[in-house]
Amino acid sequence: MTDHPAPHHVVVVGAGFGGLQVVHNLAGAPVTITILDRRNHHLFQPLLYQVATTSLATSEIAWPVRHLVYKRKEVETLLGAVAGVDAGRRKVLLEDGAEIAYDTLVLATGARHAYFGHDEWEPFAPGLKTLEDATTIRRRILLAFERAERETDPTKKAALLTFVIIGAGPTGVELAGTIAELAHENLREDFRHIDTRTARVVLIEAGPRILPGFKEELSAYAQKALDRLGVEVKLGNPVSNCSAEGVVFGGEKLAAKTILWAAGVQASRAAEWLGAPADRVGRVIVEPDLTVPGHPNIFAIGDTIAINGPDGNPVPGIAPAAKQEGAYVAEVIKARLQGKPALGPFQYKHAGSLATIGKRAAIADFGWIKVRGSLAWWLWGIVHIYFLIGLRNRLGVALSWLWIYSLGQRSARLITQGKQWAGEDKA
Amino acid sequence: MTDHPAPHHVVVVGAGFGGLQVVHNLAGAPVTITILDRRNHHLFQPLLYQVATTSLATSEIAWPVRHLVYKRKEVETLLGAVAGVDAGRRKVLLEDGAEIAYDTLVLATGARHAYFGHDEWEPFAPGLKTLEDATTIRRRILLAFERAERETDPTKKAALLTFVIIGAGPTGVELAGTIAELAHENLREDFRHIDTRTARVVLIEAGPRILPGFKEELSAYAQKALDRLGVEVKLGNPVSNCSAEGVVFGGEKLAAKTILWAAGVQASRAAEWLGAPADRVGRVIVEPDLTVPGHPNIFAIGDTIAINGPDGNPVPGIAPAAKQEGAYVAEVIKARLQGKPALGPFQYKHAGSLATIGKRAAIADFGWIKVRGSLAWWLWGIVHIYFLIGLRNRLGVALSWLWIYSLGQRSARLITQGKQWAGEDKA
Repeated sequence: MTDHPAPHHVVVVGAGFGGLQVVHNLAGAPVTITILDRRNHHLFQPLLYQVATTSLATSEIAWPVRHLVYKRKEVETLLGAVAGVDAGRRKVLLEDGAEIAYDTLVLATGARHAYFGHDEWEPFAPGLKTLEDATTIRRRILLAFERAERETDPTKKAALLTFVIIGAGPTGVELAGTIAELAHENLREDFRHIDTRTARVVLIEAGPRILPGFKEELSAYAQKALDRLGVEVKLGNPVSNCSAEGVVFGGEKLAAKTILWAAGVQASRAAEWLGAPADRVGRVIVEPDLTVPGHPNIFAIGDTIAINGPDGNPVPGIAPAAKQEGAYVAEVIKARLQGKPALGPFQYKHAGSLATIGKRAAIADFGWIKVRGSLAWWLWGIVHIYFLIGLRNRLGVALSWLWIYSLGQRSARLITQGKQWAGEDKA
Repeated sequence: MTDHPAPHHVVVVGAGFGGLQVVHNLAGAPVTITILDRRNHHLFQPLLYQVATTSLATSEIAWPVRHLVYKRKEVETLLGAVAGVDAGRRKVLLEDGAEIAYDTLVLATGARHAYFGHDEWEPFAPGLKTLEDATTIRRRILLAFERAERETDPTKKAALLTFVIIGAGPTGVELAGTIAELAHENLREDFRHIDTRTARVVLIEAGPRILPGFKEELSAYAQKALDRLGVEVKLGNPVSNCSAEGVVFGGEKLAAKTILWAAGVQASRAAEWLGAPADRVGRVIVEPDLTVPGHPNIFAIGDTIAINGPDGNPVPGIAPAAKQEGAYVAEVIKARLQGKPALGPFQYKHAGSLATIGKRAAIADFGWIKVRGSLAWWLWGIVHIYFLIGLRNRLGVALSWLWIYSLGQRSARLITQGKQWAGEDKA
């Protein structure tokens, strides 16, 4: 190595689906790689709602990033939070003052939930993006039932047994369906002073139908499946207030002690770090080759960018899109290092859309075919187990699901994180 | 029911091994029961160190209390924290102001770790009693390696790679052995800038030998097993200081960023609630029938009491002792309700002692036979899986162990709870 120049160094910020795909597809290329993430684990976000609703353990859907790449000796993994990028000096700046030099930078920093200018709603309506979000939501759902069991005032009891989910995209629908099953089936026999079947699960959507990303017939089917589960769907009115008392929408006040936010996302601060053009939710408007305008050696991928697919519609913020972008960026980097001509622009291929509604129904749209009902549900389960990393997690998740679907026993009904009952989380 | 008097009401505070045994053995008795706990889950504490050392998921060793008794319609489960007992009015007083009436009260409220008058050490040397303790310790261990990977100062790096465990009872020995395996085997290939095999694991014990509860020959064997794992055992000097810099013992300063406390326990406040006689760590000195002196209708069991066995030695603070006490109390209550003569005093029967040292060695002492090495280890594993509740958890734990022992992959290497890298947990 001594008479060679230092190899080209790629820094990938964010170990989600997109970032890891870049690293994976750069295997064998003449580069060294740093993966930088503020968390030590890669998270399988499509199943995060199952942690939030007591079906899966946190460790069943998360893996230590460094262990995923331990065989790749040219890859280092660092835990750290990015504060900015100094593009002139080609350095990533960390919050703790450290700097990491790059030749090529890939920003795959994802998104957080957003409250449309109402950040003051966050304490009352937590969103679902991280493992901690999931255990927070799990705690709130379970504590609501525990408090209702001890509450003697019928009005307060009703508010404790009202669960509001704001936003009817896939996450909102999945949360609503699973909470309804939890209340109306799984918890039914465990309480003495409340009938958990009387719990209300209310799904509020500002638009005219649920699952707006799906074809109308599938979203109508999903709506019927939610009806069967006892979920109340309220369409056509945005939420105008969230508080410790409940929500207000369409002029109606709904008393609810548990409110979950699944209504919108805000991109990470990647655009700010670079002064790059961004859309209204902060996503970098990238060039057709996924570089940040004005920075040919900085790529951005995944939920942190806005780009249109070949049909003119925005590329959706889903794992397959991030992975395709990651694979494309790896090819661009390799082509450049080999002095090959520039690749054509990134072309998104939509493989299909999947969503579940509780444990027996799902919808799938592959463009050429639409599937719904239990066949779609099996498809959904198999696809998700297939994409989990490692046999250990596939077996673990399959085992958890087997128990839920055959016995109705959810294995992760734990209230954790709170110091204790008395002082904690009274919002 | 209308022309019968209200049934005798038993309140059991604490859903650990002892409390649940009382409830279990009262099945069929003419009583109603309230189980009160400040947490919603029963915890299998003997395996808690495996959560702290990334081997098991939290939900594999914890079960929602109310689900464990859902078939017993005469049993209600309440989540709440006790503030005191009004023995005159026969009420349990909760921190939130509520009161729960009892005819018979069973206090099975356990113990916390104690710092011998040095509570200021707690932030630097967390103990291990709850699921949150376990995830806190897990986070600290994993963050120490992460920080060492990024540390350039060799002195600071060495302090980050020094893990001190204070107290060489079973928990201390289990923690030390597992952390040594984690550092010296499992994590070995995952880092680029540190050699995790150079990590020091130091077990400090004030007494003259490790595992003082075991026979000398078994504790000598355990010491050898720790030596083989690379654990440094320091005997004969108590720790005189814990800080963010490390520990001081026997005049020696040891720089260490991770310190774990396994040196002592303090009983819950049950004795205070009743003004009852207590030993120096706050354990209620109960009557031979496990009632609290002066309160014939209040029992105390488990780690919250001090009582001697038939050999004159104190009954140890282990699950089988708490279960025997719980079973005995249920018999006393049933005998009283049937108007039978009082039972003889509680007689503890020691079934045996078990401890593991890493993944290949263990010691077992059944009095009539002592076992050590891999036979003892298999015995330990089988006993613990047997005592787990439910096939689901037995399969889950068996699966996790299979992966660890065959592939060296620990499935729960997650850093959670911290807000993010930058601001968090810098102690």
